[in-house]
Amino acid sequence: MTGDLLIRSVRPWPSGRDAPEVDVLCLAGVVSSFGVGLAAPDGVPEVDGEGGVLLPSFTDAHAHLDSTRLGLPFRAHSAGAGLAELVDNDRRNWRSAEQDVATRATFTLGRTIAGGATSVRSHAQVDVDSGLERLEGVLAAREAHAGRASVQVVAFPQCGILRDKGTAELLEAALLAGADLVGGLDPAGYDRDPVRHLDVVFGLADKHRRGVDVHLHDTGSLGAFQVELICERTAALGMRGEVTISHCFALSTVDEDRRRQLVDLLAENDIAVTTVAPGVREPLPLRELRREGVRLGLGQDGMRDYWSPYGNGDMLDRTWQLAYRNGFRDDTMIEMCVDVATRGGASVLGETGRGITEGSRADLVVVPGDSVTAAVMDRAPRTLVVHEGRVVAADGELL
Amino acid sequence: MTGDLLIRSVRPWPSGRDAPEVDVLCLAGVVSSFGVGLAAPDGVPEVDGEGGVLLPSFTDAHAHLDSTRLGLPFRAHSAGAGLAELVDNDRRNWRSAEQDVATRATFTLGRTIAGGATSVRSHAQVDVDSGLERLEGVLAAREAHAGRASVQVVAFPQCGILRDKGTAELLEAALLAGADLVGGLDPAGYDRDPVRHLDVVFGLADKHRRGVDVHLHDTGSLGAFQVELICERTAALGMRGEVTISHCFALSTVDEDRRRQLVDLLAENDIAVTTVAPGVREPLPLRELRREGVRLGLGQDGMRDYWSPYGNGDMLDRTWQLAYRNGFRDDTMIEMCVDVATRGGASVLGETGRGITEGSRADLVVVPGDSVTAAVMDRAPRTLVVHEGRVVAADGELL
Ligand SMILES: [Zn+2]
Ligand SMILES: [Zn+2]
Repeated sequence: MTGDLLIRSVRPWPSGRDAPEVDVLCLAGVVSSFGVGLAAPDGVPEVDGEGGVLLPSFTDAHAHLDSTRLGLPFRAHSAGAGLAELVDNDRRNWRSAEQDVATRATFTLGRTIAGGATSVRSHAQVDVDSGLERLEGVLAAREAHAGRASVQVVAFPQCGILRDKGTAELLEAALLAGADLVGGLDPAGYDRDPVRHLDVVFGLADKHRRGVDVHLHDTGSLGAFQVELICERTAALGMRGEVTISHCFALSTVDEDRRRQLVDLLAENDIAVTTVAPGVREPLPLRELRREGVRLGLGQDGMRDYWSPYGNGDMLDRTWQLAYRNGFRDDTMIEMCVDVATRGGASVLGETGRGITEGSRADLVVVPGDSVTAAVMDRAPRTLVVHEGRVVAADGELL
Repeated sequence: MTGDLLIRSVRPWPSGRDAPEVDVLCLAGVVSSFGVGLAAPDGVPEVDGEGGVLLPSFTDAHAHLDSTRLGLPFRAHSAGAGLAELVDNDRRNWRSAEQDVATRATFTLGRTIAGGATSVRSHAQVDVDSGLERLEGVLAAREAHAGRASVQVVAFPQCGILRDKGTAELLEAALLAGADLVGGLDPAGYDRDPVRHLDVVFGLADKHRRGVDVHLHDTGSLGAFQVELICERTAALGMRGEVTISHCFALSTVDEDRRRQLVDLLAENDIAVTTVAPGVREPLPLRELRREGVRLGLGQDGMRDYWSPYGNGDMLDRTWQLAYRNGFRDDTMIEMCVDVATRGGASVLGETGRGITEGSRADLVVVPGDSVTAAVMDRAPRTLVVHEGRVVAADGELL
């Protein structure tokens, strides 16, 4: 039956190097039992975990599949400084890619899956220049990998809504065309009118019963103010659990009292936060967010695009980056990063039942390594990637 | 003749993807000529660069080969917070490693070479607990890889000099046993007496005509004060060009005027600086240091030891880390990081003639990638590693 699988010889997290290897039986896409020397029921395929560490599969909670150039000839970075220049640079260049959006997004989503992520939330730029072309490319990539990963698509107004007239209508068209969520971008700092920007975003979300995911790079009190605006709208529209703030640099650029207020507000309204573990920006207060129950995910952001040469589709590498940037050395802290990158991101996407216990969804990844920390440090190719009880990648390669 | 080699099909930095592949002839350990379809003189071996990017080989300017556990079963991090606790934790655990220091250091130095570094400066802990045992292990590793890499060893008082009575005598014994430089460690913040600490370090250096490499984590005005003390001693003893400050966090924790003063002082006294691209600490002012002519190198620091699980011997991965942590996106900035990690580190070690022009020492690395930036992002196994005109590693494996 589809979704039946016997995985032999793995060490389920948190088991260390000396933990005995066990077999894991998945039935109908759900983890059914663990044991040593399990017998495979008739017709259930068996695969070898080779003694690797068993984790819930990764979730890339913040990707931009529409801009990726992974796998294509490398282009030197051509943008100047600042968000507006990055936006313009992309607009000047994206049409000249050697492949269309669908082909590029499909390749990079495949790499992401081969790296162990079976849940992905990708933003897709919607603007008056590209219309729905990028969105359609990302939707095609989702279709191409149907059965290998669950993909959510955000209609993302990368060029602003108010400063790019016609975008609001395009966002609505994007929702009708298959986008799952409405995006937003620095309602104050970039689009210059936080209230009207958020009114459009939440208005569309309310009208079409979709979630919201807002990029918020604005820092300090201006960023904090917009967190409040988002919380107010979430409460007013009864959208608890349906809203995400990406980046949310405000959290690491206000004083401690204000930060606590914001974290409380996020928790109260069940608003999720995603980070991409940026190199220069101050890290988010990861432990505090988790302690207060804020759902927290990790993402790749753009991957080798006109914005940045970084990003490779490998969520284990990105997990290393999160741990390194936070200076974590303790295994418990590094495992917390793994939890953010796996179950945490899944919770941002509203997925339930993710884990590695009986009854969990059989979305799993097997990673070589003595322990979870060692696996993060080694970043070796994934032995197995399983989505809904089916093997979708092995030894770092998509099947 | 030894040191003769014809490397076919490489694109010497700064050539991009579309640059023609050329052949490089090395004679007697020196780059002799470049050309298309070069004929190999009689008896000169040929190797295939497979179209990769040709760089000067890497220099690991700050390693701790004596503490490494790379290749051994992973152990969970067992230290509490703070330098003293890290020191004590290491002291409690290092003897229980499955292999002796020489075996571990030899393995990790081999990995470092396979990653493309043919110049290494390793600290070796000298203290009353371990005596010269760790130093001797690192010297044995150097001997085991003689012909594959140039290795400098620093007699490093990891447990302090003044607070660990008898260390000064051991440091002197270490110099007589084969250490090349005298080390120091936070003369004020850890050893509690900056003047007497530095008097011991510089006294030994002066007496035995050796260089100095001081770990200086102390920040702010206390760190800055010690930079001055080091500069004063360097000038007084005529040691320009012989002194390195590792980490030097003072540079990123004082105000701009003070930082400029310090950079000027370092330049004036030709004191080198090394960084390990730490995750949490503020990055050093890389561009300013280079602009003012301060020699600047990059290192791995400890590699999977009782101090930290990070570090894997791969200097290209560490170069990525330096670029990422600084938020560099421009190719010129990422190439600057490569220069720090290759020629920069070599200059810290006092090596001359490093580069990829005619007359350069034939210490070279060939890395797959469309461009230098792409190679840094991809971090693929090194195609070839060449030391003094001999191939010492290929396809990521030591020969
Ligand atoms: Zn984004
Ligand atoms: Zn060190």
